[in-house]
Amino acid sequence: MSACRPDVFNPACPSRAVLETLAEKWSLLLLHRLGEGPRRPSELRRSVGGISEKMLAQTLRRLERNGFVARRDFGEVPPRVEYALTPLGGSLSGVARDLDRWVERNLGEIVAAQGAYDRERGAPRAD
Amino acid sequence: MSACRPDVFNPACPSRAVLETLAEKWSLLLLHRLGEGPRRPSELRRSVGGISEKMLAQTLRRLERNGFVARRDFGEVPPRVEYALTPLGGSLSGVARDLDRWVERNLGEIVAAQGAYDRERGAPRAD
Repeated sequence: MSACRPDVFNPACPSRAVLETLAEKWSLLLLHRLGEGPRRPSELRRSVGGISEKMLAQTLRRLERNGFVARRDFGEVPPRVEYALTPLGGSLSGVARDLDRWVERNLGEIVAAQGAYDRERGAPRAD
Repeated sequence: MSACRPDVFNPACPSRAVLETLAEKWSLLLLHRLGEGPRRPSELRRSVGGISEKMLAQTLRRLERNGFVARRDFGEVPPRVEYALTPLGGSLSGVARDLDRWVERNLGEIVAAQGAYDRERGAPRAD
């Protein structure tokens, strides 16, 4: 690994690139979902609303490359493939779940803040 | 707020849009940094490596709209402006910091996994 002290605030540190991989809704949602147990791609597709085939495949590949997820091919016909968290991914999954739960728990207060902001400043710009 | 039970896996739930706002490296890094205390925009710019003026302004505006950050204008000449976490943002900041620390703590293992993956499958595609 790099000789730098890991520091996500430093764009040259490899930890920043890892944070960029993770700080993405599909990564976080898949890690959360896989924290409930191994899943076939079709199960993930159904249970993570709105994810496309392409984003599912890309995100799983990225999570696999970073050592968070392992792909298991049962070598059957028709093909059966399953994704599961590695021990590293298992510890990360808890942090992803914490973020999701925080959002769900505080949604009422957040939506109220959005309404107050928009009434005062006008609707948000799409940026 | 919406009548749905908050569920980030449901793309129609307002909590998904909030997660999208948060699941973004600049949001997470700014929340983490502001967890250390109020900061002027120039201080944030310097201490969050790689952020542009434009992304800083956009991200602070989004965080403000969601009720995580408050902007204080001291009404001085030359202008003095400061950003600080709200109590809501303070509780979120801890979750953002946990994610950053997890990445920093596990960076060695992640970089080793990336190396093994790339040796086995070839360099990653840029997607």
